[in-house]
Amino acid sequence: MRVDVVAVGTELLLGQIVDTNSSWIGEQLAAHGFDSLLQVKVGDNLGRVESAFRRALADADAVIVCGGLGPTHDDLTREAIAAVMGVSLHMRDDIGDRIREMFSARGRYMADNNLRQALVPEGAEVIVQTRGTAPGLICPVRIDGVDKVLYAVPGVPHEMKEMMERAILPDLHRRSGEVAVIASRVLRTWGESESGLNERLDPIIAELEGVGNPTLAFLASGWEGIKVRLTAKAPTTEAANELLDMWAGRVLEVVGTQVFGFDDDTMESVVLQMLRERGLTLGLAESVTGGLVGARLTGIAGASDVLRGGIVSYASEVKFDLLGVPEGPVVSEAAAAAMASGARRALGADVGLALTGVAGPAEQDGMPVGTLCIGIAIGDDVHTAMARLPGQREQMRQMSVITALDFLRRTLATPGA
Amino acid sequence: MRVDVVAVGTELLLGQIVDTNSSWIGEQLAAHGFDSLLQVKVGDNLGRVESAFRRALADADAVIVCGGLGPTHDDLTREAIAAVMGVSLHMRDDIGDRIREMFSARGRYMADNNLRQALVPEGAEVIVQTRGTAPGLICPVRIDGVDKVLYAVPGVPHEMKEMMERAILPDLHRRSGEVAVIASRVLRTWGESESGLNERLDPIIAELEGVGNPTLAFLASGWEGIKVRLTAKAPTTEAANELLDMWAGRVLEVVGTQVFGFDDDTMESVVLQMLRERGLTLGLAESVTGGLVGARLTGIAGASDVLRGGIVSYASEVKFDLLGVPEGPVVSEAAAAAMASGARRALGADVGLALTGVAGPAEQDGMPVGTLCIGIAIGDDVHTAMARLPGQREQMRQMSVITALDFLRRTLATPGA
Repeated sequence: MRVDVVAVGTELLLGQIVDTNSSWIGEQLAAHGFDSLLQVKVGDNLGRVESAFRRALADADAVIVCGGLGPTHDDLTREAIAAVMGVSLHMRDDIGDRIREMFSARGRYMADNNLRQALVPEGAEVIVQTRGTAPGLICPVRIDGVDKVLYAVPGVPHEMKEMMERAILPDLHRRSGEVAVIASRVLRTWGESESGLNERLDPIIAELEGVGNPTLAFLASGWEGIKVRLTAKAPTTEAANELLDMWAGRVLEVVGTQVFGFDDDTMESVVLQMLRERGLTLGLAESVTGGLVGARLTGIAGASDVLRGGIVSYASEVKFDLLGVPEGPVVSEAAAAAMASGARRALGADVGLALTGVAGPAEQDGMPVGTLCIGIAIGDDVHTAMARLPGQREQMRQMSVITALDFLRRTLATPGA
Repeated sequence: MRVDVVAVGTELLLGQIVDTNSSWIGEQLAAHGFDSLLQVKVGDNLGRVESAFRRALADADAVIVCGGLGPTHDDLTREAIAAVMGVSLHMRDDIGDRIREMFSARGRYMADNNLRQALVPEGAEVIVQTRGTAPGLICPVRIDGVDKVLYAVPGVPHEMKEMMERAILPDLHRRSGEVAVIASRVLRTWGESESGLNERLDPIIAELEGVGNPTLAFLASGWEGIKVRLTAKAPTTEAANELLDMWAGRVLEVVGTQVFGFDDDTMESVVLQMLRERGLTLGLAESVTGGLVGARLTGIAGASDVLRGGIVSYASEVKFDLLGVPEGPVVSEAAAAAMASGARRALGADVGLALTGVAGPAEQDGMPVGTLCIGIAIGDDVHTAMARLPGQREQMRQMSVITALDFLRRTLATPGA
């Protein structure tokens, strides 16, 4: 089943907003086994919006339209749909009442144009709004004797996503005649290239291509590593999860400790959880990353029960004075080790993690741009590592964060550590 | 002149990569006075790519194609262009030699398929590559008796941008018969909503609409503030800049100190430069932001001549022990002041900047989520401020960074500070 996407909004064409909605929709469609072969951005012009809908419906079995459902005169999706369906718009009082109630509940004045959002094309079904004001629409359309469907959802990402999951994906499955449940599992990996993982997983991929279910896809996520996504189709959620458990286990056997987590796990959430389970607190000493490691860890609510704090030792004297690093080259494994012990001591933490390196533009202490030295102090045990990272300043720094956290993860996982 | 955009790549439809290229191209086209009315994403399928090119050329005067110029069998843009032009591809030996040289200069083995990138449609002009391997193309096409043009550029953003600026925008101006120079100036603002700025600038906007040149646009950049962009058209660069100087001056008169910088300035680059000019060093104490301020400042090369370092005092005891904050509630202006003085002292800096607050999910010290307290210590002078910021955890933290840096900027700009 082919499902194309039309994103409506002049601000998208002007580049004032990047159209992340159709990317997200495309990812969902692929995970659910639907083909999305053309995705279009069109501005707020009735003729062009209508023509974009007609073209998309001519090519695809279903079309998802995103945006243009708001209250202002620029929001033309409803009118264009009515034109394509050859019907008129009628006011749905129940929706109007709901919009009025939302405004009065917030004690806000409602301009009359908000009721435009209660207009529904004759013959369309409404997707009830649970978060904002504009409802979504499911619009059956007959094109050249073939029954097709056009869905309309608001452009506000969280409203769109909620309607996709609750109403549109299930409706697409019903129309495609599939009663199956689709479930997926993501294995988060760090430490190997996509082609390297691909090569190692080749036998499993070949086997999966034979059975056809689940499917396996690689998603490169830049400095977040490579995601391996398994998507299974089955009559029930239990059966789908059973398939996923089995094949995730097979992948895990091959990829091993390069898998650091699953689904919504991040490297920082995994490391925090490992420390929490071991009853250990953490102190940081950051040089090259200037606070990025701390910023990432504290992005997670509840980090405070593990993270004591950090020292950003950008000037060498701060390394010497606050962290007790011996004078000498500050980009070295020895300096990283001293920084880690210093952070442990100064911050009263069980574990110290330190990063020092060269983000560029120029080399430092005779070390080339891209050098990262990591130190870990656990009690009196000290572990160090050195890496050469690619990229410009920002990429090198972001790669440093995940590389250092991964080193800590591996160190904590080592028996006896 | 209407210039539409086609982005080629199955990974874009699958949502594995967000198509930021056409957003950027759309922004450039708008700034240069060209209309972009439809932007399309299509996968790596010869028939569909060719049909997308034909449709776009039927509607627009010029089409910019992004992606599909690489070496693999999935890269089909060249073949599709040749089909649309009704010509064949020929091998350009000079380009092939250049690609071979690039590989051997890096000591890397060159697979033969890389020479596919030296194939050029008969009658197309080459845009020389200066950064990667695949050259761009300028392809004249006659559609229904009308001369049009299709440009092809690689999908790698920095290669695409360089070719847009060097070759495509100037070529579009030539073809549109415009000899004018287009120049723009961005005023970066912080501290007021888009509607508030709009209202204050209303008389200037009305005046500009009368004269028609330069144009003024607001670009909302989330937690980076609102950008006010002036775009001027003139016979020479000097004349365009003169117009921009004059109108930027007018805007500045109205918006005043809410303008923190111009064009590529960021809040962090501006604050670093102010400190540098005054010969002052900076030390940080971060609680709620966990290192984000340090991370942002050290994202700028050369920050080390100003920034001594920082102390991330996530645990209250770190505030008491390392920063000398008196025991008591840690989310208060008094605590922020003590943290700022402590950071100055501990890090040996001239200026201390401290942030403490509540990012959520729960309130702290009786302060609601969104509370931010800022402290600044310059010598023995201490300045504090408190703000209530909107949003969830991440938004609140990011807003805290720019709010605190803006407070430092305003404090440094105050005579006698």
